[in-house]
Amino acid sequence: MGSAAASPPLSGKLTQDELKRVAAHRAVEFVEPGMTLGLGTGSTAAHALDRLGELLRAGALPGVAGVPTSLKTEAHAARTGIPLLPLAGAGRIHLSIDGADEVDPDLNLVKGRGGSLLREKMIEGAGDRFVVIVDESKLVPRLGCTGAVPVEVVPFGAPHTLGLIRNLFDGLAGFHARLRTVPAAEGKEEEAPFVTDNGNYIVEMFFDDGIRGDLRDISDRLLRITGVVEHGMFLGMATTVIVANKDGTVAVINKKQ
Amino acid sequence: MGSAAASPPLSGKLTQDELKRVAAHRAVEFVEPGMTLGLGTGSTAAHALDRLGELLRAGALPGVAGVPTSLKTEAHAARTGIPLLPLAGAGRIHLSIDGADEVDPDLNLVKGRGGSLLREKMIEGAGDRFVVIVDESKLVPRLGCTGAVPVEVVPFGAPHTLGLIRNLFDGLAGFHARLRTVPAAEGKEEEAPFVTDNGNYIVEMFFDDGIRGDLRDISDRLLRITGVVEHGMFLGMATTVIVANKDGTVAVINKKQ
Repeated sequence: MGSAAASPPLSGKLTQDELKRVAAHRAVEFVEPGMTLGLGTGSTAAHALDRLGELLRAGALPGVAGVPTSLKTEAHAARTGIPLLPLAGAGRIHLSIDGADEVDPDLNLVKGRGGSLLREKMIEGAGDRFVVIVDESKLVPRLGCTGAVPVEVVPFGAPHTLGLIRNLFDGLAGFHARLRTVPAAEGKEEEAPFVTDNGNYIVEMFFDDGIRGDLRDISDRLLRITGVVEHGMFLGMATTVIVANKDGTVAVINKKQ
Repeated sequence: MGSAAASPPLSGKLTQDELKRVAAHRAVEFVEPGMTLGLGTGSTAAHALDRLGELLRAGALPGVAGVPTSLKTEAHAARTGIPLLPLAGAGRIHLSIDGADEVDPDLNLVKGRGGSLLREKMIEGAGDRFVVIVDESKLVPRLGCTGAVPVEVVPFGAPHTLGLIRNLFDGLAGFHARLRTVPAAEGKEEEAPFVTDNGNYIVEMFFDDGIRGDLRDISDRLLRITGVVEHGMFLGMATTVIVANKDGTVAVINKKQ
């Protein structure tokens, strides 16, 4: 891990949502007037949007604008009063703030269980700094320990692509993969594939005890599969991780230089 | 190059289209009864479809079926009477036949100037053998010598993705890249982006004197760019290349084992 600084505990016992809010507010302290921000997606990022909106309305952050990572975030940020820019017209992105599904000791992330990994990766990878906000339940010894690692795939040939992803981890005990679905529409028998903002499908990879091995090599092997668009491992991208602990303390972990 | 065998010259001077047909007919000789075929897209592959249709109608290839690499090929093959299978239900693909835009001395290809690279790569990469049919104008000392190397990108953030592709070859004399467009629709001022079968855009990369350097490394660097779905370099995929020469001779070049 990088350098860590803990703040004094807050009084009382906090819920997971309150912890997310605590971390989100701490992240927004990094925002300075005039910055262009990458705006993340999900329940933790939503707290950051709300806090940014408060500060903007109070006149504390003149010149701040945001590039949303999903249609949902775009709607939320607009309601909150954050000026929005498209990625193409944004110029330099100074700072992105987003939650994560998992954070490993090297600050590698799993993201995208919400289904928005591609736009998040594109925007957060384009910025100077990327501040990740989590509660301590998201800290893991290895990526893939607590749930799905999502992979965005083109709809054409998706069952074939799923087969190639399975082959990649062939023989790995406890590995399985499936196409993410949404419940069947009324009057229909079959579940439908989950569709991303980009019109693609999601393959979910599950590892019994997390991903062992060289993550960058595994990333390249996934990306080499024709039909794979992107995956939810964010390697070496986070520059700071803000962790809200159960006891109300907040740890700020910076990436090792 | 691999091993080569040349057949005796045909009489008279052949047009480029006749040369394509000569190569296509030679490729179809590899097809055996019961085979499932990957069916390529483009003017050369179309000759192979026509020849397959003739042989099927003559009863010479019982049990042969094809997996089309584009909607255009699907329509053509159906008209020609070739039974079609979807990729997911095809099982093993024994042999694919397709044209190429360029073939280098190691049988690496540029494909996809027709805009169908992703489905071609998926299906042709899934088969046991991949026979490529070209006239000799397609033989190049290095990939990228004779025109665009296409890259399929997601529409979201496409100008940003284009910028990252340009950065990848930053400082390389004679390199340029642009979004592929189609002429403006009537009554509209602006050209529209070309849209692939998968709903994506195409970035065209141009190299003054072809791509120098490690092609697999360049492939990985392209695929690591968030927003890049696939590219038109087909590396190590062709098992046989059939070349129709201007003088009417046909060379069959097999991949070195």
